[in-house]
Amino acid sequence: MQALVFDGRKLQYTTSRGAPQPAADEAVIRPLRMGVCATDLEICRGYMGFSGILGHEFVGVVEKVSGAAHKRWVGKRVVGTINCACGKCDMCRGGLREHCRNRTVLGIHGRDGCFADLFALPVKNLLEVPAGLDDDRAVFTEPLAAAYQVLQQLTIEGRPYITVLGDGRLGLLCAQVMSQLNATVRCVGKHPEKLALCEKWGVKHRLLEEVGLRADQDIVVDCTGSAQGLPIAMQMVRPRGKIVLKTTVAPTHAGDAIDLSPLVVHEIQLIGSRCGPFPEALSALAADKVDVVSLISRRMKLADGMEAMRVASQPGVIKVLLEP
Amino acid sequence: MQALVFDGRKLQYTTSRGAPQPAADEAVIRPLRMGVCATDLEICRGYMGFSGILGHEFVGVVEKVSGAAHKRWVGKRVVGTINCACGKCDMCRGGLREHCRNRTVLGIHGRDGCFADLFALPVKNLLEVPAGLDDDRAVFTEPLAAAYQVLQQLTIEGRPYITVLGDGRLGLLCAQVMSQLNATVRCVGKHPEKLALCEKWGVKHRLLEEVGLRADQDIVVDCTGSAQGLPIAMQMVRPRGKIVLKTTVAPTHAGDAIDLSPLVVHEIQLIGSRCGPFPEALSALAADKVDVVSLISRRMKLADGMEAMRVASQPGVIKVLLEP
Repeated sequence: MQALVFDGRKLQYTTSRGAPQPAADEAVIRPLRMGVCATDLEICRGYMGFSGILGHEFVGVVEKVSGAAHKRWVGKRVVGTINCACGKCDMCRGGLREHCRNRTVLGIHGRDGCFADLFALPVKNLLEVPAGLDDDRAVFTEPLAAAYQVLQQLTIEGRPYITVLGDGRLGLLCAQVMSQLNATVRCVGKHPEKLALCEKWGVKHRLLEEVGLRADQDIVVDCTGSAQGLPIAMQMVRPRGKIVLKTTVAPTHAGDAIDLSPLVVHEIQLIGSRCGPFPEALSALAADKVDVVSLISRRMKLADGMEAMRVASQPGVIKVLLEP
Repeated sequence: MQALVFDGRKLQYTTSRGAPQPAADEAVIRPLRMGVCATDLEICRGYMGFSGILGHEFVGVVEKVSGAAHKRWVGKRVVGTINCACGKCDMCRGGLREHCRNRTVLGIHGRDGCFADLFALPVKNLLEVPAGLDDDRAVFTEPLAAAYQVLQQLTIEGRPYITVLGDGRLGLLCAQVMSQLNATVRCVGKHPEKLALCEKWGVKHRLLEEVGLRADQDIVVDCTGSAQGLPIAMQMVRPRGKIVLKTTVAPTHAGDAIDLSPLVVHEIQLIGSRCGPFPEALSALAADKVDVVSLISRRMKLADGMEAMRVASQPGVIKVLLEP
């Protein structure tokens, strides 16, 4: 089958990869749409030390399952959470399966991803996509869930000032999600053509170069995907404010030393935030509460996956979708 | 008068400094004991870009006041909070005077400190020392308040595992304070002779080299005062756990790049923590709930302040007290 493989050093498109063999209680899924994420690009720069088939954003159809009890899934259109848990460690028993000590993560850690004709995922991770939700929207479930995770980690009191820092894929999703709060929300980025989407959605937006770093925001969500994001966030947030950190960068990028003493002096809370709740995201997409279609910059074939990864790393490009 | 002055480049002892002139509503205080803090040492390495008389830990006697309404303070034995607020900015009006936008900080930012025969501080910052509390203990009010601040920033649920990382001045105070919680607390450090104090107090303790970095602590309090503290704390704390960051280091020290992606992957909260509540600290000292006398390594004269700073930076030394 065809697949987009990172071998630890370089990215390759292949047509000679064998089909996945599902383990017990796993489904084999044929993706209909796949999304390219900043994490995929970071992995190709060494992040997570991953090697294998890339990709973790998908909507697809269950082709087969291992285990008769799971027969009902065959033929169903699904999305799926990406952390595959052991169910036995202290984290799993404590209800934090996404933090399982022994987890594999689809296309990120210890498990082949979805940029292929077929891939395997535990049945437990699957959610059926409502009939009214098309593939172009459903493929955004995973990144939108990551945006909803921010809401789960914050307690909103009063009517706070919130800055979403970064106007990329995740920033534009977070800006829309945060706008649902009783808060004054703005998206701050570097790209006028991306920020123009905020205009369309009625979300306040500003160019970074036009924004004063006045330490007056109650909450800053760093979606920059850049090591430069946090130092800016520390200058934007008020004393005793909160920074939600969504950015993960490969260690080579982190090479710029960050002075963390402002966190202590201003008693700032820094909250790491990763994967989020799929049900909330699916439900928001089904109810058309979030516009994701406007984020689609390009549709490309999996066979052009190498080029798709290059395109996704270009400035101005928001979301690149892959089709089989 | 005599004073210990950092001129922005080097530390100097002088006897030719003029006495301070109190501004409106300020007191002039004659210190009886002064404490040397890690922050004083960091300032001499460039932290905060401060120049002026060093020192912010003291117990002293009010010599005079500016403003007839404050006459009752004259002759009183006092300690004092170190942040001098404007009372007018958004932070002051919001009840966060210690985060005043226009503040000066005793011996740290824009205001001469207490390592002198006399120094000035707003009357509003003063607290009278109870008669039963001697000078040797009272001088620990400021650092002990910084330890109590950690309690104010945490909500303890269940019976968490807490590691206080660092066996220096602040670490040993935090270890004692945290031990008052319904929690399993241990102090982890590098110095057997310092950790021996924990033994005396009945606080669990371990050498860093003997501790597994197992991501199993619910809370880690970084009191290392070293840029190496946070990377270790990130390996000790469990997913979704909390790190309280007490360490501030001069930017030159922060030169080692820290990979912050574990914060995101493990959704760790990093909580900056600075100055704390004086009333709690004074009350704990008066009730003998915390042993500070055992932390006193040396007593030296202010005239030997240069040497005192050198001694305070030696491994094995905990607290150096200065006397007039």
